[in-house]
Amino acid sequence: MIFKQLFDQESFTYTYFLADEESHEAIFIDPVVNHVEDYLDLLANYGCKLKYSLETHVHADHVTGSGLLRQLTQAQTGVNQECGALCADMQLQHGDVLYFGNHLIQVIGTPGHTPGSTSYLIGDRLFTGDSLLINGCGRTDFQGGDPGLQFDNITGRLFTLPEETLVYPGHDYSGKRVSSIGQERSINPRLAFKSRDEFIQIMNNLNLPKPKLIDVAVPANRMCGIPDDIETLPQG
Amino acid sequence: MIFKQLFDQESFTYTYFLADEESHEAIFIDPVVNHVEDYLDLLANYGCKLKYSLETHVHADHVTGSGLLRQLTQAQTGVNQECGALCADMQLQHGDVLYFGNHLIQVIGTPGHTPGSTSYLIGDRLFTGDSLLINGCGRTDFQGGDPGLQFDNITGRLFTLPEETLVYPGHDYSGKRVSSIGQERSINPRLAFKSRDEFIQIMNNLNLPKPKLIDVAVPANRMCGIPDDIETLPQG
Repeated sequence: MIFKQLFDQESFTYTYFLADEESHEAIFIDPVVNHVEDYLDLLANYGCKLKYSLETHVHADHVTGSGLLRQLTQAQTGVNQECGALCADMQLQHGDVLYFGNHLIQVIGTPGHTPGSTSYLIGDRLFTGDSLLINGCGRTDFQGGDPGLQFDNITGRLFTLPEETLVYPGHDYSGKRVSSIGQERSINPRLAFKSRDEFIQIMNNLNLPKPKLIDVAVPANRMCGIPDDIETLPQG
Repeated sequence: MIFKQLFDQESFTYTYFLADEESHEAIFIDPVVNHVEDYLDLLANYGCKLKYSLETHVHADHVTGSGLLRQLTQAQTGVNQECGALCADMQLQHGDVLYFGNHLIQVIGTPGHTPGSTSYLIGDRLFTGDSLLINGCGRTDFQGGDPGLQFDNITGRLFTLPEETLVYPGHDYSGKRVSSIGQERSINPRLAFKSRDEFIQIMNNLNLPKPKLIDVAVPANRMCGIPDDIETLPQG
């Protein structure tokens, strides 16, 4: 399998490109609209056809490239049904499975950072979006965030995976790129050996500034990153 | 492929178990003698036969389990020919290739921590021993260590691998388990954006204490962890 970890320096966002070498079917996870040209180059360089562009949640810090990729490649876009992004072709839910080539994509609902936050498990690689970060986790103080729910989903649905499962987060702000379930379970300062109440206490006292792009990014991402797409939303 | 990352809490050593699910051939990298019973259980649980027990170098902080595993399983032991461990069945050198099942093991000579330090590349997993650690690297102030050589080999033979290549070190002292070439190339404080001279300067001024077990471990490891094996060494 071809695997590339891409980085948007403005929003510190990781985007993931995975492609099956036999069928040449490819997917993106959390593409950023500013880099769509690079993504098309990547597809062309590997001779791949984009099958899916998937979101881990409705982002507050960047505008997704999913809508534009759909226009340019006929890929299907996918997002959790709780995201309120009716523009997406696939309204996913926990337990769904998708394929590209012979590779299974398991949809793991991990609401908490947002109600539609989702992780994707592909082989031994887990793409956690902003649910589980390396040495941290996504904030829960806006967009319907819920720290108790986040604790339940991270500990119940992610920390129960094999220790060697690789954790690929949606962001890192200090250059870290990969971790594992075993590592996060044992040394993540917010989660390792913490009770649910301790976690909620930590999350409710982070006092973080509001993301700069939230008022632009969230509505744009609910329209797959293409505000004109609002014309095509279901009207009923 | 089955993959397990095991940990020895006394010496903070990572041991790796890899097994091919079709042929049931397995390997260990850097086994620790105290855990050989656990390793046999692991082999039995997965229904695997041990093909190789490989060393990344002659360790100064623990005694290898390779010799005992060879006695108990008929596995072949492998170590770099520069290690002076004549007990080993395979005297490896940079560029050698081995197989278990359909999986290729590429032997990458990375002398510097010791003259026989070696990394093993299996798929996209790189087992770096004490050459490249997460956010660090092995010391070079004993056992024939050479910081200039270590710099040349890490930057020339490891940092030239694809960014997504997973780095599995021989130790970590703070619970980190996995990194990537891209991460180490960009944020390893000893190596990222450092010149050869700067690296040598850093390494020559670490002022670390002597490892507690060095006087026991090094001679024992030159005999594959079984001092009696000295009887079986080539005499000519």
